[in-house]
Amino acid sequence: MEIDQSTRDFIRDHRVARLATADGDGRPTVIPICYVFDGEHIYSPIDEKPKQVAPRRLKRVRNIETNPHVALVIDDYAEDWTTLGYVLISGLAEILLPGDHASEHARAVTLLRDKYPQYLAMAIDERMMIKLTPTRIKRWGAQ
Amino acid sequence: MEIDQSTRDFIRDHRVARLATADGDGRPTVIPICYVFDGEHIYSPIDEKPKQVAPRRLKRVRNIETNPHVALVIDDYAEDWTTLGYVLISGLAEILLPGDHASEHARAVTLLRDKYPQYLAMAIDERMMIKLTPTRIKRWGAQ
Repeated sequence: MEIDQSTRDFIRDHRVARLATADGDGRPTVIPICYVFDGEHIYSPIDEKPKQVAPRRLKRVRNIETNPHVALVIDDYAEDWTTLGYVLISGLAEILLPGDHASEHARAVTLLRDKYPQYLAMAIDERMMIKLTPTRIKRWGAQ
Repeated sequence: MEIDQSTRDFIRDHRVARLATADGDGRPTVIPICYVFDGEHIYSPIDEKPKQVAPRRLKRVRNIETNPHVALVIDDYAEDWTTLGYVLISGLAEILLPGDHASEHARAVTLLRDKYPQYLAMAIDERMMIKLTPTRIKRWGAQ
């Protein structure tokens, strides 16, 4: 879909977003995520340590495999409410595995490590990745 | 449900949360909200000006009326990822109207205006309010 330049910049320049997914019964969950936006898709790695919980068992992964409809909100909070605004992205998510779609997973890893040096020390190249394809973008407020 | 003191404090002390709801087809949406927590329930006013969009038509209100399952995440982002953490509240939401449940709506308005002086200038006493009853609380990370 077509996304105007200021919305692209808003999405690209932020460091955190909150991702909502829902299970097969329509029960939502929401978590903060780090992400990159290449102008077309949004990528977010599954960066939990595998020993804590098997990645496939993560709620957001199970939800996406059952129900690909997701929503992502990007906003800043401030006490001056005249400055508040958000970008809400609705779309379809899928799970990318390392090696999937030729170099797509590897390209997303590079973009993520450029944006977040923290990922240089993490094996996100060996983990699953969420790929979000926006279908609708809503802007609200002052941003 | 029982909520320990440090989790209560974390919820109470934060100024913004992100609320995920889902429609009857299980499609989620998510927005930033202001809220108060009285130790048992979470209240968030519908503060859009009625002339912009009729409150009943707001997506989150329609979703809650169709599907009361909601999720709320409260977190801070920081570049030092060792400090990251969140509280994820899953629960059931309902819409309170002014005058509902004896003084419950009015009490929530008072709590909201104590927490956010910004609401003193807004007619939240005349608007709908979202009431969230937690059924499950998950803590993750450093908080």
